[in-house]
Amino acid sequence: MENKKPLILVTNDDGIYAPGIRALIEVVKDMADVLVIAPDKPQSGMGHAITINSTLRINQLVNEEHYKEYSCSGTPVDCVKIAVNKLLPRKPDLCISGINHGSNSSINVIYSGTMSAAVEGCIESIPSIGFSLCNYAVEANFEASKKVAAKLIAKILQNSLPEGVCLNVNIPNIEFDKLNGIKICRQAKANWEEELDERKDPMGKSYYWLTGVFKNYDHGTDTDEWALANQFVSVVPVHIDFTAHHTIPFLKKMDIEL
Amino acid sequence: MENKKPLILVTNDDGIYAPGIRALIEVVKDMADVLVIAPDKPQSGMGHAITINSTLRINQLVNEEHYKEYSCSGTPVDCVKIAVNKLLPRKPDLCISGINHGSNSSINVIYSGTMSAAVEGCIESIPSIGFSLCNYAVEANFEASKKVAAKLIAKILQNSLPEGVCLNVNIPNIEFDKLNGIKICRQAKANWEEELDERKDPMGKSYYWLTGVFKNYDHGTDTDEWALANQFVSVVPVHIDFTAHHTIPFLKKMDIEL
Repeated sequence: MENKKPLILVTNDDGIYAPGIRALIEVVKDMADVLVIAPDKPQSGMGHAITINSTLRINQLVNEEHYKEYSCSGTPVDCVKIAVNKLLPRKPDLCISGINHGSNSSINVIYSGTMSAAVEGCIESIPSIGFSLCNYAVEANFEASKKVAAKLIAKILQNSLPEGVCLNVNIPNIEFDKLNGIKICRQAKANWEEELDERKDPMGKSYYWLTGVFKNYDHGTDTDEWALANQFVSVVPVHIDFTAHHTIPFLKKMDIEL
Repeated sequence: MENKKPLILVTNDDGIYAPGIRALIEVVKDMADVLVIAPDKPQSGMGHAITINSTLRINQLVNEEHYKEYSCSGTPVDCVKIAVNKLLPRKPDLCISGINHGSNSSINVIYSGTMSAAVEGCIESIPSIGFSLCNYAVEANFEASKKVAAKLIAKILQNSLPEGVCLNVNIPNIEFDKLNGIKICRQAKANWEEELDERKDPMGKSYYWLTGVFKNYDHGTDTDEWALANQFVSVVPVHIDFTAHHTIPFLKKMDIEL
């Protein structure tokens, strides 16, 4: 049996030059054939956006035998679609996204370009993981995150993941030795209380910045928020079937007729 | 007991001047206090994107006692956030999005700005419904869709929806009398096989259009794709807890340790 290196697709939403994706590339570069494609500019908060009303540009930055790197004018989800349908020689063994500068725990999974790239990998039937460090700073320290990512990547390459499920991994912003371990969790019930920060432009017309405060309403000890607050790495399995199956009987009983 | 009119928030992703949102406004204008806020340009495929790296503009177009209308420079999700946090006098009784020009069935729920607006309403604990007509044309006929929307809106105003669940409603592109009824469904297992359409710009450099073919791999008769193919309106309950709860035991058995 051939002992081939795995093929790994790497992307993110902070852009091709973000320190977080450089950290993730370091984790996998020597153990796999690696193809990197990431947005040419920051794409945080892009969620599952795709580019259908305008065009896309792809720019190859590195072309080595076992390592290829591209930037793309589109969103993180565009990057995965382009990789799968144009750049990769075969379906990769793993799609990893991140390491994001900032948490993508609980409801942030839905706004996150990092996680949307992992979800798109999952839609393409590729085992996929999004990694996020709970530190928004450009100069965040990714040393602990790299060790965590290496462990999880090895485990998922070995065990794969259930069909239709990817992982949302969040890492507390502390040293590796201070981590209490890894918790498999559910997404906490939390959301953002937005505030629109109103300003005046030089012509005196109003414009706004979307800001907000994150509120966790969930007191469970099985959530990602609890894990992170207690120095655990949180791992939430995320699925791509959005159907609220348990509510179908309730809705059927409503007898909605035309 | 005061017999107050309900308060309804209306948005979409095709933009404030799309015929689809005009049809939806006609359905509710006389039976409710209505606040409309929609993107000032088409925002199809924006998924759950929010505007955090640039600023937002809001423009009031109509200011009547029971009917207010705004355009916004942001995404459909931005529109809902701005309405809830700045424009609405209280939490609305319903958030409706659409009527989208084109289907948002099965996996399209994840790319759809229309559905992402409904999902954001749901995150804000507002009963929310996204409506889509299976016809992409600007000149699509919304007469049947208006009747369907009126029925569903009345029912949900009366019964509300379970917490954390909104509805993805897709309507076949046929006359009302030809519809076979309404089916409560699950999201079909389907996806897009993308193709990148490569072109050359006047300087000879490549650029791409993201195109693709929709593939339904699901033979179930309880799916939205089945319903639509059989002249039923499809109603899929969509939840905002992305956790794949059933896979937590499997992942725990993997014994991932640091």
